[in-house]
Amino acid sequence: MGVITIDPKDISVTELNGYLLGTISPRPIAFASTVDKNGKVNLSPFSFFNVFSTKPPILIFSPSRRVRDNTTKHTLENILEVPEVVINTVSYSLVQQTSLASVEYAKGVNEFTKAGFTEVHSQCVKPPRVGESPASFECKVNQVIPLGTEGGAGNLIICEILLMHFKEVLFDASGKIDPNKVDAVARMGGDFYCRVNGDNIFTVPKPNSKQGIGFDQIPLRIRNSKILTGNDLGMLGNIERLPNQSEIHKEKQSVELMNATRNVEEGVHLLAKKYLSTGEIEKAWLVLLSAE
Amino acid sequence: MGVITIDPKDISVTELNGYLLGTISPRPIAFASTVDKNGKVNLSPFSFFNVFSTKPPILIFSPSRRVRDNTTKHTLENILEVPEVVINTVSYSLVQQTSLASVEYAKGVNEFTKAGFTEVHSQCVKPPRVGESPASFECKVNQVIPLGTEGGAGNLIICEILLMHFKEVLFDASGKIDPNKVDAVARMGGDFYCRVNGDNIFTVPKPNSKQGIGFDQIPLRIRNSKILTGNDLGMLGNIERLPNQSEIHKEKQSVELMNATRNVEEGVHLLAKKYLSTGEIEKAWLVLLSAE
Repeated sequence: MGVITIDPKDISVTELNGYLLGTISPRPIAFASTVDKNGKVNLSPFSFFNVFSTKPPILIFSPSRRVRDNTTKHTLENILEVPEVVINTVSYSLVQQTSLASVEYAKGVNEFTKAGFTEVHSQCVKPPRVGESPASFECKVNQVIPLGTEGGAGNLIICEILLMHFKEVLFDASGKIDPNKVDAVARMGGDFYCRVNGDNIFTVPKPNSKQGIGFDQIPLRIRNSKILTGNDLGMLGNIERLPNQSEIHKEKQSVELMNATRNVEEGVHLLAKKYLSTGEIEKAWLVLLSAE
Repeated sequence: MGVITIDPKDISVTELNGYLLGTISPRPIAFASTVDKNGKVNLSPFSFFNVFSTKPPILIFSPSRRVRDNTTKHTLENILEVPEVVINTVSYSLVQQTSLASVEYAKGVNEFTKAGFTEVHSQCVKPPRVGESPASFECKVNQVIPLGTEGGAGNLIICEILLMHFKEVLFDASGKIDPNKVDAVARMGGDFYCRVNGDNIFTVPKPNSKQGIGFDQIPLRIRNSKILTGNDLGMLGNIERLPNQSEIHKEKQSVELMNATRNVEEGVHLLAKKYLSTGEIEKAWLVLLSAE
C-alpha cells in the first residue's frame, strides 16, 4: 500500500492543520467557560484537549494562536487575567449551539447568551458552568505553557480539577457511566464531527493480565490464514496458554464430521472466526488445533 | 435533571479514573514506538493523547504512573534514555492487535513481534514505525513533564513532529483526508471503544464568519417551540441576518395553504425543522417568519 511521506516544514500551516486534524481524530471537546478581570464571561469550544493525569486530576486544552493573523483567543486572555476555567463536555443534543458559541463575537459578549446555554454558578471558581452539559469540571489553572509565538502555536492550559458535576442520567444501575447516555460528540478534520452511540460503540476486554501468548506463538499456518483477520489473530494471541493435547483430543470428536464434508482449512478457520466474533477465544483455539 | 457533584479528593483514584475516562471521551489513540539505550524496541498504546499545536507541530501523550503499584511504563523509561518516539494512529482493523500490545510484557520484549505488526525503519529517529498504521509521526521529544509522584500521576511527553507518513488510501480525489478511509477507533471508559465511520460521522459547517445573530435574537415564540430542539435553534441562530419584509411577504404565498389546513404553529415549526435537517437555514427562517 502506498505511503506519502511529508516533512511538516515543506507545507503550509493550513495544509498541515488539515493532515493533523484529519488523522489525530476523533478529539474530545472542551467547552471552556472563563471570565476576564471584570467578571465578563466567555464560553468557547476547543478540541486540542484531553485528560492527562488522575492524581493529581489534570485536564489540558490548548487555544492556539490564530493562523490567519496570529492573534490570541479571548479564552486565553481571560485565563491570563483570572486563572480559572470550567471545562464542560458536549453531547450530541448540544452540538449546534456549541458550534454557534465558537463564533468570534466581540470581547465581552457572553456566548452563554448568544448560544442559548444556562449559566450555573460554580462553587470553587468564578466562571459559571454550562447547565446543559453532561459533565462539568471546575478547575484552577496551574500553568500556561506557550508552545510558540507564530500563528498556529498552541498554548497549553494545565487545569487541575477542583470539583466535578455529572448529570445523574449518565449512570447505569451499578453506578458506572453508560457511554450511550453520555452520547458524546467529538471533532474530526474539516467540518466533520462524530457522534458516539449505538453500534459504533464496542468493547475489547482488557488484555489478559497473565500475558497473552502473542502473535509469534500462533502457529504459522494459522497466522497465514486467508480467512482470519489481524483482529482475529490479535484475539487468538491474547490467550494465556494453548489448549493441551487432551483438550484438543476431546474437541476432535465434534469437528470431525465437518472436516470430512468441507474444505478442511477454510471450514475450520470460518468456524474459529465465528467463535471469535462472540469472544469465545478458547473455543476458537480448540477448533483450530483440533483440525490438525 | 439531577446533578451529582463530587470532590475528586473524596473518592479513590480508580473511581475517579472511571468518571474521567467515561466522560472525557472519545479519546484518540497514540500507538507509541520507542527504543531503550540498547536499541530494544517497545510499542504501546496511550489514550491520554492529542495534537496541541500546528506551528510548531506538537503532539502530547501521557504514560501515567500505575495506580496499582506506582511503577512507570517502559515507554516512559525508554524516552528518558532516548528522547524520540514514533506516534502511530490506529484504525479499526488494528484494534485487537493494538490491545494485545498493551499487555505488560517484560522489558525488552518487542511488542511489534508479540502483536504481529511490521517494523518499518524511520528516517529521522531510531524507533521504527508501525507499517500497518494509517498515519505515523516521527517525533523528537522536547520535554518530559511529570505531573505528580503518586500512582495515577501523568507524565507529559511533549513531542515535536519531524516527519509524517500517511497511507495513500486516506486521501480523496481532491487530496483531502476522508474520515471514512481513516476508519479511526478511539478509547472511552472501561472496556469501551468507538469506531468512527458511516452514519456516526456528520458535518457542522463552520459558523458564519460574519457572526450569527445568536440565540438572543431569535423571537421568543420560536425559541420556546416544543418542536424545534436546541440543535435546530443553534442552526437558526447562526444566520447572519433575519429575512426582510419583502422576502417574508414572498414566502407567505407558498405557506398559506398549509397554514389554513393545519395547526399553524406546529405545522410551521415542523416544516422549518424539515428544512434545518437538510441545512437550509435561510428557508427555515422564511417559513417561520412568514407564518406570523
